Amino acid sequence: METNKLLQQVEFIKEIDKLKYIQRRTKLLNSDRCENDAEHSWHLAMMTIVLAEHANHPIDVLKVVKMVLIHDIVEIDAGDTFIYDTAKNHDNTEEELLAARRIFGLLPASQAKEFIDIWLEFEAGVTEEAKFARSMDRFEPLLQNTSNNGGTWAEFNVSYDKVYDKKKVIERGSVSIWKFADDLLNESVHKGILKK
Amino acid sequence: METNKLLQQVEFIKEIDKLKYIQRRTKLLNSDRCENDAEHSWHLAMMTIVLAEHANHPIDVLKVVKMVLIHDIVEIDAGDTFIYDTAKNHDNTEEELLAARRIFGLLPASQAKEFIDIWLEFEAGVTEEAKFARSMDRFEPLLQNTSNNGGTWAEFNVSYDKVYDKKKVIERGSVSIWKFADDLLNESVHKGILKK
Repeated sequence: METNKLLQQVEFIKEIDKLKYIQRRTKLLNSDRCENDAEHSWHLAMMTIVLAEHANHPIDVLKVVKMVLIHDIVEIDAGDTFIYDTAKNHDNTEEELLAARRIFGLLPASQAKEFIDIWLEFEAGVTEEAKFARSMDRFEPLLQNTSNNGGTWAEFNVSYDKVYDKKKVIERGSVSIWKFADDLLNESVHKGILKK
Repeated sequence: METNKLLQQVEFIKEIDKLKYIQRRTKLLNSDRCENDAEHSWHLAMMTIVLAEHANHPIDVLKVVKMVLIHDIVEIDAGDTFIYDTAKNHDNTEEELLAARRIFGLLPASQAKEFIDIWLEFEAGVTEEAKFARSMDRFEPLLQNTSNNGGTWAEFNVSYDKVYDKKKVIERGSVSIWKFADDLLNESVHKGILKK
């Protein structure tokens, strides 16, 4: 029974290796190499443990870390959708839900349920943990784009208003990080790497 | 004061982006593409949250996750040392300690101390948390090499005895995971992808 459980867990661990192949649009800092989802998830987990004290309300740090570690695993099946893509909705699609059920479903039942629930909680963005996790997810590409002369904003001709609209949700997780992010956006406009 | 702290934290978050460039010797599953340290650290964190129940003794999961997320950050300065390298000692070198002080030292003082302490605890391998973290660090490349026809064992002609010697420490973190790993090693000998 115990051995069987471990076998299922190892199958899951092997399956999620595929996250290392899912390319994002954003590039590493000062680089033209695309970031992949595994690197991105590691970075968000680091940001969470470093920045947790700035959350608007007390958060369960381990839960947020779990959220950001697993939040993109559905993309193994569903692929990455660019946040400024106008043709495809970025949010919680049917395809992603099927992916969650298939991939987390490799785990023993109670663990599968725990992971699907955490992923759904992240997607819903209602709890303090989900709000903070989503702040991290929006803050990282901001640091990347400002270090890369506008990065994907420049590459895909995204206006200040659209960027502001997406980044404003950082405030829901952390007012102080949003203040920092907002300053970075204004600085980017001044530098001419983000068009108003 | 608060802004200053956030500024230091963001500097650290930007600096550790470099972990994505540190190449390991082991390859992704069923692949000839080398894994980098950020991907590796993400995978160990996932393994920790999935496998924590198999630890020999109760562990503080968040602490182990922090350990595995940061355990290779020193390699940004010190580089990756191959575990079967006979010319260079893999363990806690002076170079790594300097790296820990420089990189974690970018953080506000109390956080820098916390991270250096966690890294030293991992390196010492004495606490239950460190033992389990080190088990994860040894278990992941085993899954990689067995999926890659022997991977680095075959590539660098590493014998069963040497591999066994390195992998046996898994037992200190988890007897049940070690049993699983030991079976995998024996199976590898039978398949001829690990030489006795």
